[in-house]
Amino acid sequence: MSSGQRRPERPLGRVAILGLGLMGGSLARGISGLELAARVTGWSPLSTERDAALTAGAVTLAAADWRDAVADADLVVLAVPLGAAADFLSELGGAAPSTATLTDVTSLKAPLSRAAAAAGLAERWVGAHPMAGGEATGFWASRADLYQGARVWTVPGEAAEEHRVRVDRLWRGLGADPRPLGADQHDRLMELVSHLPQLVSNVLASVLDDAGVEPGQLGPGGRDMTRLAASDPVMWLDLLEHASPALAAALREGAQELDRAASLLEAGDLDALGRLMRSTRSWKDGA
Amino acid sequence: MSSGQRRPERPLGRVAILGLGLMGGSLARGISGLELAARVTGWSPLSTERDAALTAGAVTLAAADWRDAVADADLVVLAVPLGAAADFLSELGGAAPSTATLTDVTSLKAPLSRAAAAAGLAERWVGAHPMAGGEATGFWASRADLYQGARVWTVPGEAAEEHRVRVDRLWRGLGADPRPLGADQHDRLMELVSHLPQLVSNVLASVLDDAGVEPGQLGPGGRDMTRLAASDPVMWLDLLEHASPALAAALREGAQELDRAASLLEAGDLDALGRLMRSTRSWKDGA
Repeated sequence: MSSGQRRPERPLGRVAILGLGLMGGSLARGISGLELAARVTGWSPLSTERDAALTAGAVTLAAADWRDAVADADLVVLAVPLGAAADFLSELGGAAPSTATLTDVTSLKAPLSRAAAAAGLAERWVGAHPMAGGEATGFWASRADLYQGARVWTVPGEAAEEHRVRVDRLWRGLGADPRPLGADQHDRLMELVSHLPQLVSNVLASVLDDAGVEPGQLGPGGRDMTRLAASDPVMWLDLLEHASPALAAALREGAQELDRAASLLEAGDLDALGRLMRSTRSWKDGA
Repeated sequence: MSSGQRRPERPLGRVAILGLGLMGGSLARGISGLELAARVTGWSPLSTERDAALTAGAVTLAAADWRDAVADADLVVLAVPLGAAADFLSELGGAAPSTATLTDVTSLKAPLSRAAAAAGLAERWVGAHPMAGGEATGFWASRADLYQGARVWTVPGEAAEEHRVRVDRLWRGLGADPRPLGADQHDRLMELVSHLPQLVSNVLASVLDDAGVEPGQLGPGGRDMTRLAASDPVMWLDLLEHASPALAAALREGAQELDRAASLLEAGDLDALGRLMRSTRSWKDGA
């Protein structure tokens, strides 16, 4: 490296990505496309995903055994559903080098922070949750710019400085916006900004389905409001299993407000409906 | 016209568009861009919108008095909010030629069908409702391809064939997909596919606001689910004023389903939540 060069080349070293679906596949594409790593090794339980990732140039190597993928990694990213990520964590200490930074991309952080601590990995575990994705799944839905401009919550917890820096560098390298947060604080926030909209979309779609409406009859607004209704149930049940009473409380508050809107309509109280609409418009505009 | 030429040039003749906001402005841009009309005359109560439409080449002429805009029109499009459209209808008979086709782009059709009948204009009134738009308003939000690929409900009612054909030609010329429907049938459908998602978005945003969530903390799903919360309250109150009891009933069904989801979460009944999610996913995938 010449003396005038400030930025290290391939700053992430050897990266292992376990899981090559939408999240892991996009990570692999982004890291490889931007040449952020000396090598990207990918693992997926599906040989079709491994082959597709190799063909797309998203990974340098694709391992059929996840232990081979992490054996000499500097950074291991768990891009599998929450339950699987916790399982991996219990075995990762023995499979990856003791210097490797360990991170993930799942939507809840407290369960994995606990799993990392239980496995004796808290010192090099830096959880991450990129606020990006979509209802489509699998490597075929992945894209190199998925994380571009996305907010990424990171949960450094008790991790050492070098590991915090490496995870920060990963997300900044991909053009994302990493922000540190406590694990519990993060998970309570997600119940409001992610779980609640998800279930509201399911409920709205269910009401429309019951009424005999077909998706093709929706306009752009109705399509946006029911997009999440096509989300992967398996992934979501994994997350909902950890929900706190605050999520049920928020759902009940939503139910009360919907009932109130119905009453206002029946009473012809358009002034009150107008106040609701102006208030939410102001909230959005303050974004 | 040469004998080999099948398609009439400028098939819409002289078009007058009253209202140059998102909907009317996009219509003017599309018609002018595709050279569907011999002339496009626009009217807006705002001189700034008239000037912007002229500068953008969306209109050939901009009239400060709407009567001047329609005086020799073959096709008059009301692209103003519902209440204003009904007011225009009561005076349009005396201002436009008796051969002119009259149409609109508002989201409810029964109130305008009644207004057209009351004004003695049912024979040349063909209501239209393009399922396109957005929460942004004004000419500055308009674009030539807004209606490209959009479903457009048309309500021919008692209109004569020539007027039906002209309105059909307008939308097909813009690349949209016109489908005839009865006025009441249309309005009941809209309460489900448009009003209901709108109010659900307002309610969700209100719950998030109450919980201290900021819009910047949302991911793509939460952003989609609260996009409509920024919709124009004035336009919506205009529409909600005509809502039938079916809308309130749908809101109450949504409230019950949200309450039920809360109970399932509290009881840890993930199987039932999974059934809800799989069922809405199947519904969406059937689109």
